[in-house]
Amino acid sequence: MGKKEVLEEKSLTRRSLLSGAGKIAVVGAGIVAVSGGLSLFSKAEAKGPQALPWPYEKLDTKEVGKIAYDGWYKAFCSYGVASGILTPLQTKIGEPYTLLPVEGLRLGEGGTVGWGTLCGSLLGATVALGFVAPYDVGKQILNELLQWYSDTDLPIYKPETLKAEVKVMSVSNSPLCHVSVSNWCKKAGKAFGSPERKDRCARITADVAVKTVMLLNDWKDGKFKSTLKHPPALYGTPSQHNCGGCHSTKIPEVIK
Amino acid sequence: MGKKEVLEEKSLTRRSLLSGAGKIAVVGAGIVAVSGGLSLFSKAEAKGPQALPWPYEKLDTKEVGKIAYDGWYKAFCSYGVASGILTPLQTKIGEPYTLLPVEGLRLGEGGTVGWGTLCGSLLGATVALGFVAPYDVGKQILNELLQWYSDTDLPIYKPETLKAEVKVMSVSNSPLCHVSVSNWCKKAGKAFGSPERKDRCARITADVAVKTVMLLNDWKDGKFKSTLKHPPALYGTPSQHNCGGCHSTKIPEVIK
Repeated sequence: MGKKEVLEEKSLTRRSLLSGAGKIAVVGAGIVAVSGGLSLFSKAEAKGPQALPWPYEKLDTKEVGKIAYDGWYKAFCSYGVASGILTPLQTKIGEPYTLLPVEGLRLGEGGTVGWGTLCGSLLGATVALGFVAPYDVGKQILNELLQWYSDTDLPIYKPETLKAEVKVMSVSNSPLCHVSVSNWCKKAGKAFGSPERKDRCARITADVAVKTVMLLNDWKDGKFKSTLKHPPALYGTPSQHNCGGCHSTKIPEVIK
Repeated sequence: MGKKEVLEEKSLTRRSLLSGAGKIAVVGAGIVAVSGGLSLFSKAEAKGPQALPWPYEKLDTKEVGKIAYDGWYKAFCSYGVASGILTPLQTKIGEPYTLLPVEGLRLGEGGTVGWGTLCGSLLGATVALGFVAPYDVGKQILNELLQWYSDTDLPIYKPETLKAEVKVMSVSNSPLCHVSVSNWCKKAGKAFGSPERKDRCARITADVAVKTVMLLNDWKDGKFKSTLKHPPALYGTPSQHNCGGCHSTKIPEVIK
């Protein structure tokens, strides 16, 4: 897997250059536990107080869920998750979080302006993790998050005040907005424009923000471990795990 | 289309509240030309100098392409496009761009850590546009960008120094990394780990950064116009335009 090889090669170089800058324990093939910070980028390239990763303090998942849920009704999924994670950090930590206008992270909505690609809630998490976690950690947390999103009966979150009844939960089998939304609409018998579908997406926005913060809190406590391989390591190309989801007739062979 | 309706309703409210804050000309159904800034967020919510949109000055597409191409070899597609657009603005404008650590935008790589969803170059563009353009403009530019990415024979960019021969161009018919990469690999007969595939993705990273900046430069000149509808307005749900690309046997009916 070429991309991963390049990356590992660079990371190793950085590790030898920056020994002591972070703690990384490679427990075994594919089992990684990481704390502290590693970066491909030299201190000289990062200007001022915003050097990565930004400081993280454990967040209250109840508060995070509420901000993310309310955020969906303000500016949809991508903004919802980004605000659920980053707004409490603006309050707890201040700069550099207060220098980032979270409302700029809205365009991931509907799988990026309605194209149904990566669920916007996951795009919001992708961007937040990029600032909050060291690269190696963020990459592994995101891998876990996408797997959890694809495998889990959602939504789980229950809002304090009921806007719409959402009784149906569904497994998306995919991190793609189109697949996730369509599976739920089919199972629930509800249209995309219905109040129930809207509230389902608002609740999933809360779920994704909460799950991301649970993983970040675990990492902060030194408890985050992941045995999950990234798809290219398994299939030789960027992909989801369920090839048959789209390739319903014949799964093309990957060129080696 | 519920989501769009909600959004338009809010935008109209803001328009009446913020008349004069930006210039918007709705030329006809689906034809929108926009300049200046409109936001769902009040000034009171934005803190300090980072209020959106951040100032934009026209960029040199040659410089943008080179930074993005080189950026791929540093930290792949998502970082490549983000750096191609944002690094020149850090130099030209300074703050608030210099307060944003662009290397935090790496995790979109390989369609988000190798899951093959939204092409990372487009995720980089999504985030950059969220800061640089007013929301209405960014949304429309991104819609145009995803359509162009899906319809165009890529890569176009020619690097100054040849790292690998990339003679094959291909049309992705999709903004998804997995589909885009797989189509090219199949046509070129090259593996994902090959130097040619890597350079193909580096060149597309340049192409996406350049196209985004061409659209932003047009907007800055008051020339950006778009007649393109977002997919939910056409299909009633977030989606790509080529349903048959995945639904090879029977296209499910969208619940109305």
